[in-house]
Order: sequence, then structure tokens, then C-alpha cells
Amino acid sequence: MEELATEQEAEESHRQDSVSLLTFILLLTLTILTIWLFKHRRVRFLHETGLAMIYGLIVGVILRYGTPSSSGRDKPLSCSQEDRPFTTLLVNVSGKFFEYTLKGEISPGKIHNVEQNDMLRKVTFDPEVFFNILLPPIIFHAGYSLKKRHFFRNLGSILAYAFLGTAVSCFIIGNLMYGVVKLMKLVGQLSDKFYYTDCLLFGAIISATDPVTVLAIFNELHADVDLYALLFGESVLNDAVAIVLSSSIVAYQPTGENTHAFDAAAFFKSVGVFLGIFSGSFMMGAVTGVVTALVTKFTKLHCFPLLETALFFLMSWSTFLLAEACGFTGVVAVLFCGITQAHYTYNNLSVESRSRTKQLFEVLHFLAENFIFSYMGLALFTFQKHIFSPVFIIGAFIAIFLGRAAHIYPLSFLLNLGRRHKISWNFQHMMMFSGLRGAMAFALAIRDTATYAHQMMFSTTLLIVFFTVWIVGGGTTPMLSWLNIRVGVDPDQDPPPTNDNFQVLQGDGPDSERRNRTKQESAWLFRLWYSFDHNYLKPILTHSGPPLTTTLPSWCGLIARCLTSPQVYDNQEQLREEDSDFILNDSDLTVTYGDTTITANGSSGPHTATTSLDGRRTKSSSEEALERDLGAAEHEVASRGTRLVFPLEDNA
Amino acid sequence: MEELATEQEAEESHRQDSVSLLTFILLLTLTILTIWLFKHRRVRFLHETGLAMIYGLIVGVILRYGTPSSSGRDKPLSCSQEDRPFTTLLVNVSGKFFEYTLKGEISPGKIHNVEQNDMLRKVTFDPEVFFNILLPPIIFHAGYSLKKRHFFRNLGSILAYAFLGTAVSCFIIGNLMYGVVKLMKLVGQLSDKFYYTDCLLFGAIISATDPVTVLAIFNELHADVDLYALLFGESVLNDAVAIVLSSSIVAYQPTGENTHAFDAAAFFKSVGVFLGIFSGSFMMGAVTGVVTALVTKFTKLHCFPLLETALFFLMSWSTFLLAEACGFTGVVAVLFCGITQAHYTYNNLSVESRSRTKQLFEVLHFLAENFIFSYMGLALFTFQKHIFSPVFIIGAFIAIFLGRAAHIYPLSFLLNLGRRHKISWNFQHMMMFSGLRGAMAFALAIRDTATYAHQMMFSTTLLIVFFTVWIVGGGTTPMLSWLNIRVGVDPDQDPPPTNDNFQVLQGDGPDSERRNRTKQESAWLFRLWYSFDHNYLKPILTHSGPPLTTTLPSWCGLIARCLTSPQVYDNQEQLREEDSDFILNDSDLTVTYGDTTITANGSSGPHTATTSLDGRRTKSSSEEALERDLGAAEHEVASRGTRLVFPLEDNA
Repeated sequence: MEELATEQEAEESHRQDSVSLLTFILLLTLTILTIWLFKHRRVRFLHETGLAMIYGLIVGVILRYGTPSSSGRDKPLSCSQEDRPFTTLLVNVSGKFFEYTLKGEISPGKIHNVEQNDMLRKVTFDPEVFFNILLPPIIFHAGYSLKKRHFFRNLGSILAYAFLGTAVSCFIIGNLMYGVVKLMKLVGQLSDKFYYTDCLLFGAIISATDPVTVLAIFNELHADVDLYALLFGESVLNDAVAIVLSSSIVAYQPTGENTHAFDAAAFFKSVGVFLGIFSGSFMMGAVTGVVTALVTKFTKLHCFPLLETALFFLMSWSTFLLAEACGFTGVVAVLFCGITQAHYTYNNLSVESRSRTKQLFEVLHFLAENFIFSYMGLALFTFQKHIFSPVFIIGAFIAIFLGRAAHIYPLSFLLNLGRRHKISWNFQHMMMFSGLRGAMAFALAIRDTATYAHQMMFSTTLLIVFFTVWIVGGGTTPMLSWLNIRVGVDPDQDPPPTNDNFQVLQGDGPDSERRNRTKQESAWLFRLWYSFDHNYLKPILTHSGPPLTTTLPSWCGLIARCLTSPQVYDNQEQLREEDSDFILNDSDLTVTYGDTTITANGSSGPHTATTSLDGRRTKSSSEEALERDLGAAEHEVASRGTRLVFPLEDNA
Repeated sequence: MEELATEQEAEESHRQDSVSLLTFILLLTLTILTIWLFKHRRVRFLHETGLAMIYGLIVGVILRYGTPSSSGRDKPLSCSQEDRPFTTLLVNVSGKFFEYTLKGEISPGKIHNVEQNDMLRKVTFDPEVFFNILLPPIIFHAGYSLKKRHFFRNLGSILAYAFLGTAVSCFIIGNLMYGVVKLMKLVGQLSDKFYYTDCLLFGAIISATDPVTVLAIFNELHADVDLYALLFGESVLNDAVAIVLSSSIVAYQPTGENTHAFDAAAFFKSVGVFLGIFSGSFMMGAVTGVVTALVTKFTKLHCFPLLETALFFLMSWSTFLLAEACGFTGVVAVLFCGITQAHYTYNNLSVESRSRTKQLFEVLHFLAENFIFSYMGLALFTFQKHIFSPVFIIGAFIAIFLGRAAHIYPLSFLLNLGRRHKISWNFQHMMMFSGLRGAMAFALAIRDTATYAHQMMFSTTLLIVFFTVWIVGGGTTPMLSWLNIRVGVDPDQDPPPTNDNFQVLQGDGPDSERRNRTKQESAWLFRLWYSFDHNYLKPILTHSGPPLTTTLPSWCGLIARCLTSPQVYDNQEQLREEDSDFILNDSDLTVTYGDTTITANGSSGPHTATTSLDGRRTKSSSEEALERDLGAAEHEVASRGTRLVFPLEDNA
């Protein structure tokens, strides 16, 4: 009969699991139906994520106050163990042995008042679920759906905002919050420890912006593409920086007695940890992306789209696991894997797999994102360790406002010194306004809610996410029109050249166009990377680009022939024909970026299709190709609208 | 420092989890690449699932013998608890409280020799993972991708094979195995208890056929569509029957002292459980399918394919959870949900969502299936409680052979008495041959491996799956040619009418064609259902079928107008035009099925497009429509190849 009782208990537990998951599914279904209604009626003041939170809140209230609280917690076992807990435990229950696994530590004061309610306990997920299941598809999709052209065009600014900006924001928020904490101690509002490192951690957590609602509206209204690229790019890389930053702050452990004072050795260790984790995760992501590209290039897997899609999915997922297994950050690795996959592998996929993979990750992303936002709404009432401190909350709101301002305006000023295409005041205001906090801040905050300080930070983060998503999300459309930001822009079209004497190159293929645009704002470092990518990586990893036999030195002939896919020669032929349609619409082709103006020896000028047309092209070294690229870019075409044959070598 | 140690342990555990998942992903990747190679070179002797098992086996051997065995198991806690185990446990470790969750019971003899190896323990999944995560997408996909036309045409036979056949097979195998067990007891080969119910359970487990390899080859070679429908339909419903059958056998618990003898009350209780679970699960699946159909019909969700796909996915998943929460079988519910979704909801989806949902579930199905088969290979070496008994294994092989024979041949004989389109000897031999065991048998067997009998059953099941997948999978192509079964058939084409004086209706749309074909072999019960479905369900749930205003009695006018979508009237108009191309190729339209030949009062004869063409059609009751349908079917068209205008009312 004992066996039966245990079985029944397990069954009951399984049933409750099903019910709690069902709750979330119904929440999501409701959200989807309401979103449809909103989209149908063109309501824009509330985004789907905001809606998911509201429904989550309602269900949270019902669960909190509507379900009976049961005595789910059994009394603690009295016997004491050895000095540290085992991961698994065997317990002898009247002759039978039962296996238990370690779940975590419970602070002694909480033993009797936490999780009295079975249902509330069931709807509370392990925080690691967010990091291991829900965030990866969201972040991968962000990387995979990156609009490369506009992203790379603004890469320098995006990197500056994401790295420098997030660091600045983290330190400013951290220090302001330390002031707030000191103040709270003075007025006796603080009942437990709150260290400086906790404040910095809060700064890192809350610096991860997630303008999902703003971007959705931008997408819908086709707002300015460069602003979109800046916001999207910043928020994507930002998340990665915030994760790694928070792990580095956690890793900051001064030695000796004074464990919470500043320690130079520990500080540099933290910086080292940051650089190590970031570059390690980046490498992992890039390497799996490259491996997938190679596999899809050198097999004829594209004849079987199902196999191809499955392989793509598995390889992308393995990045995450590989990074986690090596002690790096899976989420960051997945982001860079997504970017690499979009840049290389995507070109090798069959048409069907392209749409399949896009759609698969779009659905996963949509479900995961709305799930997290519903959960946030739910957590406000079902999470049982909330600590709401009005002083801390008000302080946090002021701090994030100041932190965002100190991040956007000075950086934009510095960037504008070098940028040819300036970031206007309106754009800066819009970026300031769009500093929403979302899924990543929540996931980082819920990861560790063991101490008093962390619980207060979690509750505050939740409120900040609610406030920013609802207010900022609702205010985006009015803000756009108030700031006079262009809407209804064709993303493949470029901004009007009359505005700032901005030159436009119009090619036949969007690819070549993108490439040409990219060159306009690229720094020397980026240009180096670009030519390396174009001459070596693209031909090695994809079916496009110039044949390696022409870009590699002659002594690599055999390898080059092996690595170059036969399609490339065909592509060359084909593109040679198409190239004759390439035209230059505007005259000024000077390449400017950052604080560097590149003046290459533009000797070769625009080439016409004069290279031999007998199937194989004449050998040209990578330097030559780069020179020609630069030459073409430098050359001044006198008459606007002249049809000009574009250099052949640019078939990326 | 204690805290740190625990954290490090948790991290280590997480890392091991990642590594074990990574192992499976690499296995699947390897499988995909090899499958591609096989498909590329048209190798057909080994299917992807067989391959996945081989790779699983290899990795299993490496894990088993290549990794050092660590002392992962800590010694049991000495203190004894109360009379039954708690689900959560608080343990006081030198002043700190740690929470533990119950994992399961361990038999006392196993405490020191099981799971010494951390890695082996990590790659061993909770059996419920199969039922809650891996099987649902596989089964849903089976229901959703069902080729309706051929399935419904053979519905009677499929139901007979699946229900009667599985029951017969289960009882025959169970009884034969009981004989084997008795024999083993006689010769002293059995060291622990093995009850009659265990034998029956084995019969239920091993009766779930899964001809995945055969069907893949059929698909590739375009083998006979009716044979395909019979095999596929049987295996799909078969799985559902086997699951419910095994739960009913587990529920069979005679009262009183003699707990393992026959008890009529308990037997009827088991039958009741079977019927209850089956019909309950069926209802759950059908209801969520119908709800999804209604939602997709009455909202304009099809303007937003992403929302539509997400809703479809969530609703389908909720079936599973709903059934589990209500105590029914989620996997069975999901199957019927899939069939309902394919029959109704699919028609309401946008073109993009149709391909999206198909592809999404195809990828999930592919990954889940190959994962299970890799895991099977792995489990042969990593599962630590194997009991291989040669006598039992040989007995089991003989029993499944006899069970399959006793299921196919007599049933086919009985069915042939009524079927007009006989199941030929070749088909029967092929069905006999295709009785593979796969994912479902494995999942059922691994679900409970607590007792000696169950462990022996699990090991035997594993061997049976290996053997049948490899041998039968490899032998399919030779068998097909040896049995002279047609290959290279166009699935939309019908078998040659000359063969068995089988009439062919050729319509413009595949839908109407299917419907017409369906009628040819439908029994009166099915015909009743068909006309109900066509006149009421299809118009209510989808945008197709005749307007409800014409099929419902006049007093339901208001409801009918509300439920009928405006598209129906348009469709009517359109189809009226198209209908004029419908032709009847063959003369004999007698409807025969099972042991019943239907002779309806074919008075009305084939209608030509004489009904009023002024936008709304003249009112016709469902009886009239049925009569006309029947009439059309009964009418003898004298000259072959005559172009005959087909009745309008048949626009399903």
C-alpha cells in the first residue's frame, strides 16, 4: 500500500505539472487572440509583450488569492549530516530506500513561510529554465534575423553603444544605487546587508535593454532603418555584454578579511573574466557557425531540406551546450552563432531550408518571448520572496534614467565627431526613450534570489520592466511623430541622398548593394575584415565570392581548388553578365568612418568587363581586389545618374 | 566556503548535463550526415533509425567501458523517517537547511552497484521524458500527416487491424510468454517472480508496431498507396491501443488474497478502464481540434501566419496537457487532435501557416524519432539493470511472430469476405513482414523497470526493436520486389481499374476526388458519419462544404447564417463552374464495404448544374444531399469515358 501511495503522489504531482503548464499555454493563447484583435484594429498603444504581462498579472492574482494554501512543505528531517550536503541522498524509510536530489539551500528563517501553496510552487520555474530553454531561441533569432546591411553599416556605433555604453550605464547605475543604499541605511530602511558589489550587479542586470515593443512598432511603421539598426544592434549585443558583466561582477571576490572593499587584484581578475568569457563565447559561436557552413557547403544536403533544417537546428543548439560545457556563456555563444549562420550558412541552404529555419526560429522566439513576459506578470504575485522598498525603487528609476542619459548623449557626441552620417538629436532622444528593460534583465535578476539584496533587486527589476514596457511601449507611436522620425521607409531603399550629401550605389542584387553601402562608413579595421571576409571566408564557407584560385597566392593552388566550389565559377560567369547593369547614382564615393578618412591609391578606377571571358578569370591577388574596391570607392564620378559599369571583382 | 563548494558542485552537474545532451546532439548530427550520404548514394538497406541505433550503440560502448567509474553515489543517510517518504525533504547540514526532492525508490540490493558512473547516470533520462516530450510530436505528426483519402477509404480494415488485431496479438503473445515463463521456472532459469499480468503487459508493449523504416521505403519508392494506408493507419492507431491496453493491464488489480489469479470483476474493471481512457482521450483530442478549427475560422488570424502557427502549436500541445491533467492519455489525445486538425483546421489556415505547421512538426518529429532510436542504441550498454534471458528472448521472438501471424491472416480473411477491393496474399505477407517494433514499444517498456520481470521485458524489447529495425528495414526493398508489389505509383492516382473492376472518379480537385473514392468502400455507419461531417461539421468548422442555410432545417436559419462563413457562398459559385469538368471514368459505382452492400434508393441520379445560379442555391435538406450522393454512386453509367457532369452538392 505504501508503494501505491507514492505512486499516487507522483501521479498527482504530474497532474499538477500539467495544469501549471496548461495555465501558461492558455495565457499565451489568450494573448495571441488579443494581439490579433489589436493588430486587426490597428491598436498600437499596447504591445503583445505588455499584454502577456497583464494576463500574467491577472492569473497571478487568481493563483495567489484564489487557491487554498496547502501544507506542501513537510517538516525538516531532524538528523544532521556531514559538513556539506550531498547532491543525491538515500533515505531509509522503514526498510525501503528512496533517492532524493539536492534542490538548493533554504535560509532558516524561510523554512516555514515559503511555498505553502502547492499550486504557487508548481507555477514557479527553476530560474535556470530561462537561461537554458527560453533565452537561447530568443537570442539566436535576434542574431539570425539581423538585417546585416544596416547592422554592418553602423557596426562601429553599435559596438560603442553596446560595450562602452553598457559599461558606463552599469557603473553609473551601480554607484547611484550605492548612494541610495547608503541613504536607506541612514534612515533605517535597510534591514539586511547590501554591498557595493550588489549595487554593481544591479547596474549590470538593469543595463540590458530590450526594446522589443519599440522595434515591433518600428517594423510595423517602417521607421528609419538606421535608427532601427542602431537600436536593434545595441540591444542584441547589449544583452551579451550584460550577461558577461554580471558574471564578472559575481566572480569579483577580494581575498583576505575585507571581502567587500575594493581590491585591485580582484578587479583585474574580473576584467580578465569578462574578456575571457566574452571572447570564449564569441569563438564558440563563430566556430560552430563556420563548421555548419562548411558542412552545408561540402555536402549536397540541400537536396534534403528536412535533413538540412534538422542539422542546422542541432548545430545551433550544440553551440549553446558546447559553451556551457566549457564554462562559457551559452546565450552569448548562441548570439554569435546566429550572426555567423546568417552571414555564411544561410547562403548555402536550399530555398526551402532558408524559409524553414527562419520560420522555425521565429515561432520558437515568439513563444519563448511571450512566455517570459507572461511569467513576469505571474511572478509579481506568485513569487514569494518579494521585497518592495519605495526608496530603492524610486532611486532605481532615477538611476536608470540618468544611466541611460549618460550613456546615449556623450557617446553619440563622440561618435558624431567621426561619423559622416551624424546621429541627429531626434535619434538620440528616441534612443534615450527606447531604453526598455525586458526578458534579459528579468532572467538575470531571477537567477539568484537567495539574499535580501538580490530579492530587493529582483522586485525592483520586475517593476522597472513593467513600467518601461507599458509606458514606453505605449508612447512609441506618439514619440515617433513628435520627434519627426521618418516612417514608411522601404528597408531596401536608402535614405534620401539630398539630406546629407550621402551617396547611393544602386546594384542589381541587394547583396552587392549592401556591400557597397557598407564600405561607405567603414573604418580601416573593418575594411581589413571586410576584404578578408570577402576574399577568403566567403569563398571558403559559401558558394559565393571570387574563386579562391584567384585570391590565394599561387602556392596554395591545390588547396584553393579543393575549397572553391564549382558553382563559384558559374556564379562569376553569371554575375559578369549582370554586372553591366550596375550603376552609380551619386558622385561622392569617399569612404569615411569614425575619425579616419581612408584615402587609398585609387589608381585602377572603375573596371569595365574587360577581364577575359573564357570561363576562368585572370588571376588577381587579394591586394589587387582590395585596391580595385578602394579605387572604385574613391573614384569621383562626375555626372549624376551616369550609367557606369561596376567592377567585376565585387561579386560578394 | 561551504556555499562555494555546493555552487561548484551544481556547476559541475550542469556541465555534465550539457555534455550528455551534447553527446546526443553529436550523435544525431552524425546520423543526419550519414543518412544524407546513404540517400545520396541510394543505399536502402539501412534506414536512418537503424543508423541512429548503431551510432547509439557505439557511443554506449564508449561510455560504458571508456569512462572511469566514479563514486557518484553517496552512502545512504542512516536515520530512518516516518512510514512513507515525503516528496520534498529538508536536511539540516551543520546548521544550514537544504531542500531535496524525491526521485524514486531504490531496491536495497541495488544501492551499491547501480549508477556508479556519473556519466552513465547523466545520459540516462527519466522515462517520462519519452512520454511527455518525445512521443507527442511523433504521434501528432503521424495524425497530422495522415493521407486522409487513402486512410478513410480503408478505415474499416484499419480499425479492425488496430483494435481487434492488437488485442488478439496482445493476448496470444501474453499467453505464449506465460508458457515460456512456466518453462523457465521448470528448468530453473527464473530467479524472481513473473506473473501472468506481466506476460500480458509484455504482450501489450510489444504489440505496438512501428513500421517507420518500411513506410520510409514505401514513400521513397512510391509503393502501393492502399498497402501504405493499411500499414500506416494500423501502426498509428495501434500505438494508441497499445498504450491504453498497457495502462488497463496495469490497472488490473484483483482484490483479496490471490492477487495474481484471474478475477472477473477486476477484468471488467480493466475493460472499463480501457474504454474510459480511450474514449476520454479521443474526446479531448477531438474537442481541442474542433476548438482550434472554430477559432481559426471565426477570427481573421490567417492574416498573421506567425500568430496562427503559434496558436496552432499551443492548442495542439494543450490537448496533451489537458488529457494528462484529466487523467487520460496525452499521447492518444494528441493523435486524435492531429487527425482533427488535419481534417478541419488545416482548411482554415493561411497558405503560409499550412506549410509552416507541416514543416514545424516534421522537423520536431524527425528530431524526436531519431533521438529515441539513438537513445535505444545507447541504452543497450548504459542501462544498468539489463536481464538477458536467452530462453525468454527466443520465446519472445517466436511469440511475436505467431502473434503477428494470428493477427494478420485471420483478420484479412474475415475482412476480405466483405471487402470489394480484396487484400491480396502479397499484401498480407507484406503486412506480416512489416510488423516492426519501434519507439512506442521502447517507451512503454522503459516506463517501468522496477521489478525483475519488467527489467527482463525491457531488455527483450530492446533486442526485438534492434532486430526488427535492422533486418526488416534492410529486407523491405527485396521483399517488395519478391512479392511483386507495385512501386512508382502516383499517390493521387488510383489503382488501375482493370485489375478488379474498380471504378475511378476523376474530379478536378483532389479533395472531391478523395471524397468520391471514400464512398466506394464505406459502410453504412461510415456513410452516416460522412454525410454528417460533410453537411454539418465541415460547414461549421471550416470555410468549405455546402452553406448551413441549405443543410440545416429552416427553423435554425439564424444560427445557420451566423455559422456559415461568407466564403462558402463564393466557393459554391466557383465550384459550380469547376464541377462541369468532373467526369466518371468507370461505370460501376456500387458502394460496398465490410460485409454490407448498400443499396440506396438511387432515384435522383446524377444531377447536372440545374440548380438556380443566382448566387444563393436552392434549399436542400441533408437527406436530399445524401440521397443525391447515394444516387450518384448507385447510378450505372453505361459508356466508359463519358464526360458526365457531376452533382453540385458534393463540394466538400
